[in-house]
Amino acid sequence: MTGTTDPSLAAETTAPEMTVAQIAELAGVSVPTVSRVINGRSDVAPRTRAKVEEVISRHGFRRLKKPAGRSALVELVFHELAGAYAMEIIKGVERVADQNGLAVVLSEMRGHTPGRGWIEGVLARRPIGVIAVFSGLTPQQSDQIRSRDIPFVLLDPTGDPGHAFPSVGAANWSGGFSATRHLLELGHRRIATITGPHRMLSSRARLDGYRAAMDAAGTPVAPDLIYEGTFQTEDGLVHGRTLLELVDRPTAVFTHNDLQALGLYRAAAEAGLRIPEDLSVVGFDDLPVTNWVTPPLTTIRQPLTEMAASAANLAIALGRGETPKHHRLELATELVVRGSTAPAPR
Amino acid sequence: MTGTTDPSLAAETTAPEMTVAQIAELAGVSVPTVSRVINGRSDVAPRTRAKVEEVISRHGFRRLKKPAGRSALVELVFHELAGAYAMEIIKGVERVADQNGLAVVLSEMRGHTPGRGWIEGVLARRPIGVIAVFSGLTPQQSDQIRSRDIPFVLLDPTGDPGHAFPSVGAANWSGGFSATRHLLELGHRRIATITGPHRMLSSRARLDGYRAAMDAAGTPVAPDLIYEGTFQTEDGLVHGRTLLELVDRPTAVFTHNDLQALGLYRAAAEAGLRIPEDLSVVGFDDLPVTNWVTPPLTTIRQPLTEMAASAANLAIALGRGETPKHHRLELATELVVRGSTAPAPR
Repeated sequence: MTGTTDPSLAAETTAPEMTVAQIAELAGVSVPTVSRVINGRSDVAPRTRAKVEEVISRHGFRRLKKPAGRSALVELVFHELAGAYAMEIIKGVERVADQNGLAVVLSEMRGHTPGRGWIEGVLARRPIGVIAVFSGLTPQQSDQIRSRDIPFVLLDPTGDPGHAFPSVGAANWSGGFSATRHLLELGHRRIATITGPHRMLSSRARLDGYRAAMDAAGTPVAPDLIYEGTFQTEDGLVHGRTLLELVDRPTAVFTHNDLQALGLYRAAAEAGLRIPEDLSVVGFDDLPVTNWVTPPLTTIRQPLTEMAASAANLAIALGRGETPKHHRLELATELVVRGSTAPAPR
Repeated sequence: MTGTTDPSLAAETTAPEMTVAQIAELAGVSVPTVSRVINGRSDVAPRTRAKVEEVISRHGFRRLKKPAGRSALVELVFHELAGAYAMEIIKGVERVADQNGLAVVLSEMRGHTPGRGWIEGVLARRPIGVIAVFSGLTPQQSDQIRSRDIPFVLLDPTGDPGHAFPSVGAANWSGGFSATRHLLELGHRRIATITGPHRMLSSRARLDGYRAAMDAAGTPVAPDLIYEGTFQTEDGLVHGRTLLELVDRPTAVFTHNDLQALGLYRAAAEAGLRIPEDLSVVGFDDLPVTNWVTPPLTTIRQPLTEMAASAANLAIALGRGETPKHHRLELATELVVRGSTAPAPR
């Protein structure tokens, strides 16, 4: 037995990565088959692909040379394409791509088959880099991405600092703090909040900011004023109906995104309450439409377009072999005061 | 002199298209240079490119064989990426692309240099097909597209029936008619309308539908109740302020898109008028947000996502060499009655 046919030894003594031949031998397949898997080709049986992926995942293969050439593409992957929020992000990525002579490939993670997932499509297109708008990669997806030579940047408004990839996020805690302090300064004390899903750290951070501001003002947080939602418009309507019927109803609500605030507007109208005279509302995101609802929404501006542009610049720099100074950016949020907040009614 | 070196003769007697060699000779450049221009490569001087394009444009070159291979890409080109309207279109194209194992390249026409325009980028990427969301191609752009073997479909809400390309649009005239008839049936007679730009046929068709409904009801159209806008939210605010100050102010307004209706909501609030009690409003598009404003907007649903999906299917079919039954589709519009319309005040 020679050293080069002992992959574990080879990995320890020469480099952390295995050659294609070594992977082929371990997986019991041909070298061309391994190449096809690595390059995201479709002509590989699902079971064979899984076997090769497993070896790659276990032994930390990285290709030794840069791929033959990258296409003039940047990939933007959404967990789900939806609404104005996604549009702000697309604009930022497109702007930076255009400045760099690149085109944007847009895709959605839903609907891919297990046999040939989205990552195979990405591998086949050989982009300069990938910007992914979601969090919670599966361990398998993380492994697949790490084992390939594709610069991968998370545009991660959920703000999970634990992941292994470069990322761009927003200052969610500060945003929650500013929103709540603004209401406190207007004299509100019964301040409710409608959150996103608890598992999303962005919402957790906004909630912690809310609690911190209440604590700083010496105002107890009432557990019956915290409602969990899913970042949908319906949250504001459904929870709004409940909280506006409370005997000691809140005079102000901080919703964790702008869509929830729109739903709350509806609930307030149903209850015959005027915004901001009877109820103050602060949203989060600053989507374009918030300036046009009546009354215009006071909100926390999350610079989605700038965040997307930063993520694109980061991905492109990595794709060009540069070493960016920062692998994790957090852009500032900002209170935008419009017409939906007013002094607390006496 | 042989026949094959006399391009005009060759063109007349053998086929409408010229060979690369003939183009090269006429343009006074090398054959590889012509190839580079045809394939959208960047290493061609602008003046040389222009010379070759001119010959191609003048002599109607079409490549004789299908290109060596198309990439698994569909191109979606916007005149300008903006807002919820664009998002609905993106979703439709992405869905169809995904069903066909294709990825979507998204781009914007602004910002390209004259020397290497957007079409060179498209040629270099070799997509299955292109869906363009705009009208008013320049004659030069039309020539460039026609001279290449790229299936090109206009997603053309402006509804210009004069162009030479396959297209998908919406029934704009019927939409304008339905919107106005709905208001007439509620007893309104002073019905104003805020249009898009006059040069856009979509808006012209909506205005003609408005006039036709008024005529059918025997209601004279007052010229002072027609305002031209640019499909922006501001139109509704600015023209709304004017028309709500008229001595004999209208009791209803049909705006040619939903954003204008949102601006009009603002103008009504400023004037202390309630919607729908004092003023009825009908929009056009049915963007997702219209269901969430207060009151929810009565509007004409334009099936943007379905229109985009149809355009993508058409482009893909053409790219696969199929012959679609219809090259020009017009999808139906539909009145969606919500809370912004009510019987005319007495």
